[in-house]
Amino acid sequence: MPITNKSGLKIIALDVKDVRFPTSLGGHGSDALHTDPNYSCAYVTLTTEDRRYGYGLTFTCGRGTEVVVLAIRSFKRFVLGMNAADIFADFASFWKTITNDSQMRWIGPECGVAHLAAAAILNALWDLWARIENKPLWRLLVDMEPQELVSTIDFRYISEVITRDEAIRILKERKSGQGARLKYLSENGYPAYTTQVGWMGYSDETVSHLCKKYLNLGFTHFKVKVGVNVLDDIRRCSVVRNCIGDGKVLMVDANQAWDVNEAIDWMKKLAHLKPLWIEEPTSPYDVLGHTAISNALKPYGIGVAGGEMCANRVLFKQFLQSGGLQFCQIDAARVGSINEILAIYLMADKLNVKVCPHAGGVGLCEMVQHLQMWDYVSLSASMDGRFIEYVDQQHEHFSDPCIVENARYIAPKLRGYSTQFLPEVLDKFTYPTGSEWQRMFEDATFPEPDEAELLNV
Amino acid sequence: MPITNKSGLKIIALDVKDVRFPTSLGGHGSDALHTDPNYSCAYVTLTTEDRRYGYGLTFTCGRGTEVVVLAIRSFKRFVLGMNAADIFADFASFWKTITNDSQMRWIGPECGVAHLAAAAILNALWDLWARIENKPLWRLLVDMEPQELVSTIDFRYISEVITRDEAIRILKERKSGQGARLKYLSENGYPAYTTQVGWMGYSDETVSHLCKKYLNLGFTHFKVKVGVNVLDDIRRCSVVRNCIGDGKVLMVDANQAWDVNEAIDWMKKLAHLKPLWIEEPTSPYDVLGHTAISNALKPYGIGVAGGEMCANRVLFKQFLQSGGLQFCQIDAARVGSINEILAIYLMADKLNVKVCPHAGGVGLCEMVQHLQMWDYVSLSASMDGRFIEYVDQQHEHFSDPCIVENARYIAPKLRGYSTQFLPEVLDKFTYPTGSEWQRMFEDATFPEPDEAELLNV
Repeated sequence: MPITNKSGLKIIALDVKDVRFPTSLGGHGSDALHTDPNYSCAYVTLTTEDRRYGYGLTFTCGRGTEVVVLAIRSFKRFVLGMNAADIFADFASFWKTITNDSQMRWIGPECGVAHLAAAAILNALWDLWARIENKPLWRLLVDMEPQELVSTIDFRYISEVITRDEAIRILKERKSGQGARLKYLSENGYPAYTTQVGWMGYSDETVSHLCKKYLNLGFTHFKVKVGVNVLDDIRRCSVVRNCIGDGKVLMVDANQAWDVNEAIDWMKKLAHLKPLWIEEPTSPYDVLGHTAISNALKPYGIGVAGGEMCANRVLFKQFLQSGGLQFCQIDAARVGSINEILAIYLMADKLNVKVCPHAGGVGLCEMVQHLQMWDYVSLSASMDGRFIEYVDQQHEHFSDPCIVENARYIAPKLRGYSTQFLPEVLDKFTYPTGSEWQRMFEDATFPEPDEAELLNV
Repeated sequence: MPITNKSGLKIIALDVKDVRFPTSLGGHGSDALHTDPNYSCAYVTLTTEDRRYGYGLTFTCGRGTEVVVLAIRSFKRFVLGMNAADIFADFASFWKTITNDSQMRWIGPECGVAHLAAAAILNALWDLWARIENKPLWRLLVDMEPQELVSTIDFRYISEVITRDEAIRILKERKSGQGARLKYLSENGYPAYTTQVGWMGYSDETVSHLCKKYLNLGFTHFKVKVGVNVLDDIRRCSVVRNCIGDGKVLMVDANQAWDVNEAIDWMKKLAHLKPLWIEEPTSPYDVLGHTAISNALKPYGIGVAGGEMCANRVLFKQFLQSGGLQFCQIDAARVGSINEILAIYLMADKLNVKVCPHAGGVGLCEMVQHLQMWDYVSLSASMDGRFIEYVDQQHEHFSDPCIVENARYIAPKLRGYSTQFLPEVLDKFTYPTGSEWQRMFEDATFPEPDEAELLNV
């Protein structure tokens, strides 16, 4: 139902902050290509005339966040003065404006800094919408009529795979059984898997200790980082396989470490450890490469997963069309927010590929749980073979953090998209002015910020 | 030959400016998706200890240049204090550092703002190198031994198409006949085509007038923008075909206006006007889409061209592998400068696709002429069916502008990469502080800059 009372919903402010957490100190989040990430985000707060707020973020890895923050400031011109109700009433048009401005699209298009910046703003708008409707985001989506939901999507460049009318038809069909699925979801939550046991920077002892911990917490699916040294990988994966036994599931993640043939050769050497998937074996732009890897690894029972660095729906379309991905890992903050993610879910459904969202980082678990729960209730109608990534980090910063119990995400109950920071987080971790950063500069834990990083202050 | 005397070559300053020209006032450069571009660039000046300079730029379309400028500032940390000779001695390693920093790659990777920023800095480094060697850039490349040239390339993600050793072998083979080709090039220049006759904003009268003008200047290849309205396109292309006759060549450019099936249907309606190619029919990420369009249009004798918005060598690789492009339009400032462009030329050669560089904008003609001339002398050894785009705009700003005579680019003779601005250009067109911009704000020709645009000042 479109918002009928527009009064007070004019957007009068957009604030953006560079927020960084010093995660590189513990080796958390380290992988083959990202050796020292400081999990960070560009954090947007929208304010309406009647003092409603929308909070949205895009995840980053430390350096470079300042560039995304400036891009968000550059996009302000498309948001300020707009009535939020008008945006939601024709969300696809607004989406095109912010992602395809005739001058700014050159610095994208629909990728990298520009698309991350658009995602942060769009995420804040979706949060605002859910808050206005007084619903958790997943429930806002579930309660939308197919026609309204689909009106938020730009179908440009994907119409040979799915059209607006087809999307509406599919969503109408899947209404059957929704009540039962809502009940099941609220009683049982949604399955999670853990990436916590095998960051690249962890020792074998840490890996083994964490496997036991997460086994005890009820987890059945465990993901390990690979891709620097094949003998190390065999050893590290063996540690995990020995801990979890044959009945549980191992996944491995190379974070784009390999060339196409290297990926195939490397994975053959890990095949005896029976990984369910190899995630990001090579460049996130390489549709044909992923297809070659998928085909070569099929006889070994290994699927290919990916998506966290897939720039947009056009690349996702091809990965899904070509059989390059057996597991589609949508990300909540790289592509253009829910508007674009819905298109990817619809294409994945049409082309029979299971969605298992990417999460971790900052706020990604908080966001993707909403999306995957909507998918279960309204689209795929199944949890079979699907699970949401879970990393137990950076949740304490949020006012409504995701809750995982017995290896299942519990359906959020509070209104919004679950990415509002607690006020003290901004005081402490806004970069470089926050009190924690000032302390760490003082004791030389980190070097002082450089000229570029100071520019947005 | 590596630089043996490193003394004085430490890079002690990197300056970057936001430079914009008010081209939207005349409809120049307008196309289906870019309706009002202000041709612009982020302009980098490197300074060494002994006061040598390197000038490099990346092209932009107005708004958003400020974001690229900040990204360049963020990349300063990788450049300042380095000795330029050390960079050139292992250029591929430096390339990896600036394009794949473990924290910053998340805001790419290898695309959009981050890659445009890297390109501007790398272009300045190549200019500096050519100035140190006292050669025009194309000649620097021609004079390099294959081993040295190839040492500047990162072969990651493309090794299944071309390896380092294979590239060296190919370049060695093509040494035969180089002397004769150098002579031919210096006497005859390199063929150009014009995009000047058919910008979207031009009236039929203007189109017709310009066709006659460029015919008289000796041009044989004419490109027209299409993609907003099919009846308009038929009319506009007919105007051009009538002016140039059947003996000359028409190309059309949709600037990503269409979905895949739409592109096929639309082009069938233009087929009777016998265009050589349709450029950018759809999303620059759609490898499978381009392949479908290529296959569908082959019976009509229409090829597919593209590349100016192709983010990186991995996407180019697939367009070339899949038959999605019959004309490969490398761009001098979107992918990671010459290091990456050489890889694309080598793949195009291996996969038998002709390179016809994208140019126009700001400084693109100046740069790509060097690349294509190197290709003729050292790689493809042929000009057959190849030509460089030429747009007669924004050349007056450069100290060594490209020269096109009788529809042929004349080989540059001055040292460097031809992208040094005349000093008064920066005084006038630096945005928003330049005198021309101040004048235009005052008389309200353009709105005042916004908060984001002021941040880098």
